[in-house]
Amino acid sequence: MTEQATAQIGVTGLAVMGRNLARNLARNGFAVAVHNRSPERTRSLVAEHGDEGRFVPAESLADFVAALERPRAVIVMVKAGGPTDAVIDELVPLLDAGDIIVDCGNAHFADTRRREEALRKQGLHVVGTGVSGGEEGALRGPSIMPGGSAESYRKLGPIFEKIAAQVDGVPCCRHIGPDGAGHFVKMVHNGIEYADMQLIAEAYDLLRAGLGAEPAEIADIFREWNSGELESFLIEITADVLAHGDATGRAFVDVVLDQAEQKGTGRWTVQSALDLGIPITGIAEATFARSLSGHAGQREAARRAFPAAGATWRVDDRETFVEDVRRALLASKIVAYAQGFDQIRAGSREYDWDIDLGGTATIWRGGCIIRARFLDRIRQAYDDQPDLPTLLVAPWFADTVRDGVPSWRRVVAEAARAGVPAPAFSSSLSYFDALRADRLPAALIQGLRDNFGAHTYRRVDRDGSFHTLWATADRREVEA
Amino acid sequence: MTEQATAQIGVTGLAVMGRNLARNLARNGFAVAVHNRSPERTRSLVAEHGDEGRFVPAESLADFVAALERPRAVIVMVKAGGPTDAVIDELVPLLDAGDIIVDCGNAHFADTRRREEALRKQGLHVVGTGVSGGEEGALRGPSIMPGGSAESYRKLGPIFEKIAAQVDGVPCCRHIGPDGAGHFVKMVHNGIEYADMQLIAEAYDLLRAGLGAEPAEIADIFREWNSGELESFLIEITADVLAHGDATGRAFVDVVLDQAEQKGTGRWTVQSALDLGIPITGIAEATFARSLSGHAGQREAARRAFPAAGATWRVDDRETFVEDVRRALLASKIVAYAQGFDQIRAGSREYDWDIDLGGTATIWRGGCIIRARFLDRIRQAYDDQPDLPTLLVAPWFADTVRDGVPSWRRVVAEAARAGVPAPAFSSSLSYFDALRADRLPAALIQGLRDNFGAHTYRRVDRDGSFHTLWATADRREVEA
Repeated sequence: MTEQATAQIGVTGLAVMGRNLARNLARNGFAVAVHNRSPERTRSLVAEHGDEGRFVPAESLADFVAALERPRAVIVMVKAGGPTDAVIDELVPLLDAGDIIVDCGNAHFADTRRREEALRKQGLHVVGTGVSGGEEGALRGPSIMPGGSAESYRKLGPIFEKIAAQVDGVPCCRHIGPDGAGHFVKMVHNGIEYADMQLIAEAYDLLRAGLGAEPAEIADIFREWNSGELESFLIEITADVLAHGDATGRAFVDVVLDQAEQKGTGRWTVQSALDLGIPITGIAEATFARSLSGHAGQREAARRAFPAAGATWRVDDRETFVEDVRRALLASKIVAYAQGFDQIRAGSREYDWDIDLGGTATIWRGGCIIRARFLDRIRQAYDDQPDLPTLLVAPWFADTVRDGVPSWRRVVAEAARAGVPAPAFSSSLSYFDALRADRLPAALIQGLRDNFGAHTYRRVDRDGSFHTLWATADRREVEA
Repeated sequence: MTEQATAQIGVTGLAVMGRNLARNLARNGFAVAVHNRSPERTRSLVAEHGDEGRFVPAESLADFVAALERPRAVIVMVKAGGPTDAVIDELVPLLDAGDIIVDCGNAHFADTRRREEALRKQGLHVVGTGVSGGEEGALRGPSIMPGGSAESYRKLGPIFEKIAAQVDGVPCCRHIGPDGAGHFVKMVHNGIEYADMQLIAEAYDLLRAGLGAEPAEIADIFREWNSGELESFLIEITADVLAHGDATGRAFVDVVLDQAEQKGTGRWTVQSALDLGIPITGIAEATFARSLSGHAGQREAARRAFPAAGATWRVDDRETFVEDVRRALLASKIVAYAQGFDQIRAGSREYDWDIDLGGTATIWRGGCIIRARFLDRIRQAYDDQPDLPTLLVAPWFADTVRDGVPSWRRVVAEAARAGVPAPAFSSSLSYFDALRADRLPAALIQGLRDNFGAHTYRRVDRDGSFHTLWATADRREVEA
């Protein structure tokens, strides 16, 4: 407790993400207090990177807190859930009113809301902050999504905006909104990332089957795509991964077990969307596709019961097919983002966060996993029309989808005929066709619900709720 | 408190479901105590139906409880959530150890688990019980899914098995498993019901667009289908609803607003499946299709931006198309049930319920909304092979799917080309194709995750977890 308060911000939890965030802060000129439960990590950070800036190492949490200028800002970078609660419980007695706890882990936004509310009563700020960009991003400039109070952002903003990625001179960081807004937006970001990756995987699978091409050839296609509208970090690394060879001489992607894992944010996104009544079919299909891939026993049984006919499918016109897949991928991707932004808007309304959709797109343009040229178009769309009913109808997106529709239909139809699973491609097309339908068979569903459960229905020609007395002879309609 | 204990069971909450359950009990020879917060309902029940059996009306909860033989069995039939908690709180002080509270409302199984655990400590049994069949079922024989202790079922079993629907002399009621098992199974039942109805709605929509047929003609098609493998309550009432004319002279289904509503069990089912890691894509698409239909503003904007080309699509061969749709419906329905039963098995494992899958199918054969000829085949499949990896590979189901695959592919491809939204049809086909795939592009997803987040991967050729050092020049692979 004898140290002098000389650090502008602190980081506790120095596994790779915390360590890299601390280095990023130091490299940007901030004096950063560093602490870890086991002090070896603290020592090795300072030993290896002490020359990068001003680190203030502390071996106890008390010394760590004492090293911080007031109001203190403490970044907690530990596992979500119990470990985060444990660190916060330990920190609280050491802090004073006005101090700020910045949770940069992947907390569920509901937990963040709970923590923020509990500590607000004690005068402390809890700032649930989404950080995307992986280890490299944490070190060189991530996309940062802080929630919490506007007051806390006055201290944190200048720091975070400096260490974040910069695109066109604009930092990939902004105050998202109160309490859990930052973690909510990060959650949806990850959900969109699931959809994006699933769509890329389906495009690869279709190209491989339809062209009979090797991964390295498909890498070239993705590399070319990356110079156009699809330009993005994920397309770039897809080309990289597909081109990579394994030590055994086989393509790397062919030696990787085809069971995708997940850490839970896709699941959370879909669960939240269900609560909010927002159809995010692309993210849902992507999340379920990962679960499905892991059910090895079921897959084995299904393979035995329904053996594939053999690789008989080949497209006639390779060039058209590649362009069809590209357009289908772009159109499906637009649907996934439209759905994700719908969810952010719905969450913002439900929890009273007042999130700026254009601003959110702005800070995803760099630093994060879904960074893409595309996101500047989304920023533009929501900046031009903040009450846009759906991204699909913004001019550039509507034009792109319109141009892509024939290709999209061909690809989904071809996948169905050839037996190549394309759940996200086809689900996105169904969503598009449902949204634009003059009339949906939902009317029949309402009729059935009224028939078996007296759940009532509304009419197209007058207001009110109605019920048909199905069991009576004349089946009279009554107002409900 | 002066009344004599003469009733074998009691019902509190006499809205239409509770009232009909009480009448069903009385008609089956059970003396039933009846109570409602406002006594008018109690009085009118006895006034109108007192001749159907032995009712013991009570105007206070204390008198109601006093009228029950021990161990007392009290059916609570009030709204899920707060109202159920309120009634239980009022009941508990009036009950004695060994008494049974039967919650027949649509509680979330997690609430039932919570209540069961809390009251078990006080020696009371809480039996969360799913009841399906609507008002008519409650009166004439529902499907009943009781959870709770085996001890409680010794009292309840003989009563519930008597008032339940009977199929081939077997009651549509059995003890599902401990604590929340009954409500869990009822929840999945409802989820399957969502999928079933969505598939029917898509079939109707495709027939209408492809044939250019009127609802009454399509009613005939459904009526015919109801004499085959699709025979079920929902197909039967679909024919009925489609044939129904409105007072305005239009088809009934055409005057119903095409925005489907929902009460939450579909949503709960999908949320639970996400927690359990079970891909229930059919139920998810059905749930989202309902939400989508309600977003009137978005639909209006999308219709304006992407006007339909007009009803230009007509199939060439009507008979083949109708048969294709029938087979696609049957195959998609098999997928939806396979997914639902997977979820029941996963829930049973997760919560240690030891649910008998064949037994569950048995009690859905009658009484409930999804009752169908089909369910006897499911019973058979799980009775023959309790560890069946997926319903899809049971002999009859595998044969039926195999026979249906060419039709299924044609229908999904045709829907995609024609712009008729068929999210559940196409999602089910994708699921089938993914499950049977020799290789999934999930391998690429794992490669990407390792590339940007060092999430590691497994290999096809040896055990262990691996990480490629992507940033190094030689991209060495290390064991993780």
